[in-house]
Amino acid sequence: MESNYPEFTDITTVACVGVGTIGGGWAAYFLSRGLAVRAWDPSPDAEAKLRRLIDAAWPALSALGLAENASKDNFTVHADLAEALAGVGFIQESAPEDLALKRDLLARIAAAAPGNVVVGSSTSGYGMTEMAVDAADPSRLVVGHPFNPPYLIPLVEVVGGRATDAKATEWASGWYEFIGKSVITMDREVPGFIANRLQEALWREALHMVDNGEATVEQIDLAITDGPGLRWPLQGPMLTFHLAGGEGGMAHMLDHFGPSLKSPWTRLEAPELTDKLRKDVIDGCDDEADGRTIAELVAARDAAIIAVRQAIEGIGQPGRERNK
Amino acid sequence: MESNYPEFTDITTVACVGVGTIGGGWAAYFLSRGLAVRAWDPSPDAEAKLRRLIDAAWPALSALGLAENASKDNFTVHADLAEALAGVGFIQESAPEDLALKRDLLARIAAAAPGNVVVGSSTSGYGMTEMAVDAADPSRLVVGHPFNPPYLIPLVEVVGGRATDAKATEWASGWYEFIGKSVITMDREVPGFIANRLQEALWREALHMVDNGEATVEQIDLAITDGPGLRWPLQGPMLTFHLAGGEGGMAHMLDHFGPSLKSPWTRLEAPELTDKLRKDVIDGCDDEADGRTIAELVAARDAAIIAVRQAIEGIGQPGRERNK
Repeated sequence: MESNYPEFTDITTVACVGVGTIGGGWAAYFLSRGLAVRAWDPSPDAEAKLRRLIDAAWPALSALGLAENASKDNFTVHADLAEALAGVGFIQESAPEDLALKRDLLARIAAAAPGNVVVGSSTSGYGMTEMAVDAADPSRLVVGHPFNPPYLIPLVEVVGGRATDAKATEWASGWYEFIGKSVITMDREVPGFIANRLQEALWREALHMVDNGEATVEQIDLAITDGPGLRWPLQGPMLTFHLAGGEGGMAHMLDHFGPSLKSPWTRLEAPELTDKLRKDVIDGCDDEADGRTIAELVAARDAAIIAVRQAIEGIGQPGRERNK
Repeated sequence: MESNYPEFTDITTVACVGVGTIGGGWAAYFLSRGLAVRAWDPSPDAEAKLRRLIDAAWPALSALGLAENASKDNFTVHADLAEALAGVGFIQESAPEDLALKRDLLARIAAAAPGNVVVGSSTSGYGMTEMAVDAADPSRLVVGHPFNPPYLIPLVEVVGGRATDAKATEWASGWYEFIGKSVITMDREVPGFIANRLQEALWREALHMVDNGEATVEQIDLAITDGPGLRWPLQGPMLTFHLAGGEGGMAHMLDHFGPSLKSPWTRLEAPELTDKLRKDVIDGCDDEADGRTIAELVAARDAAIIAVRQAIEGIGQPGRERNK
């Protein structure tokens, strides 16, 4: 196993294998960070499509701030995979979500890539253990799961497979952070990772509600956009409930609303609120609050909701009425 | 049953029964709309607490825009319930979440309130059918469920009980919209209403993950704040997936990712994706898109994510690192 992974600051060129919506979004993001991109994609009009994706993403990336030397033209598209990978310091794989295809492609990438180069896969569902089975050397293959659009949503979930070098996983997390992403490093493979599991639970409850005529599609979206969705860009579901507990925080919240975990408020059964779970959740919120009082967190939440509402109202939405 | 409910424009005074965090938040909101508030609360220091809540909310309400004649001093606190309800055009009940207490209080409110005045309950969990059982005339009792803080989150879920006059429910929805809230009117009582069901599904999945050591509290919050949470203030979960289908929209999304509903991506089992459910979801997204193309929706989403990120970064968060 290699352990002399590249210094982040030495990397000037990366490869994007597969440049559809996700891979093209990654390419645009890498370009915005001042990197050169070498792309490979089996689609006959890959270059034109990639150009269109980058052009569409560039105004957004410019608004958020480009690296000094960033250029949207700093990419090449190659017909040969090995040629695309030549001399790069990192590889992002974003092929369609097809296990057989991923296995074959990751094996070919691992074989052709320079020996100290880490490969991140954009898969939204597969674990690296099952994707890496055909690779002669799977030690540098890691999941680096982005959210759509990858050039705007900061989150990347990083998790290795059983055969992944722990140092490669650590390197990938460091690299994504170095280029400005928000990184969650998981220590085990969980189907759907973290964000998709949470999102999927909400989505499935919503489908059940539509299925049973309990809510319309439009009501479900309004329930989120004009309700809890306004809090979530600043404070996630855990910290949100920490504030719902008033001065007593999450401890009071769990003691007061714990019994509602038995209520049929969703089709998903809750876990038993054991002493350990209670403590883990309270301690986690305290860690996250990092010394900020409930009053400070409330003030920050209120400022965020105002700012978010004004931001959303500011961009204007034809066909979308939002009450003041 | 009364049907001569007040004209919205004739209403100058409302009552808040119970002025803790939620009721006090309602009081602040009503004041910001230029209404006078008459409050009742059994707490001995109700007036001082309400004053503090209103003072804390007022800067936020000012930032979002006050009605011309709004005054944060335009409230009175009464020791007698009937006195508090005298001459008001609407009553918001926000007592603690205790069924026996709610039943008794709503019966007393219904008995004391002027005959054509509608009563909205802030309950987050009970249905009006079970809360109204002790009221001699339950026809004007409606659930009007807000989100915390009620002075900043626009959503109100409105649903009547079996004995509620349909016209009272309709009037309540109209009234909340008139004073600037985003209203969902439900045609049946569903435990947790809509937003809390969705939020609760996500919360329970999160608790399971902590319980099983699959994710920490901090990872769960980061997964939302820096991931899908950035999209949700503009586009809810349904429209989000409409865009995930590319040019084919929700139809392509369901046909392509439908099989993932069988995946163990959450502990919540999905409903069967029947032809009817497929059609309902696709039609609902088309209705909501209201003629906007996928490209237009993508542009709106991107603008929103940028605006939301800049808004959140703009307010600054001690102890909260957010990568650029």
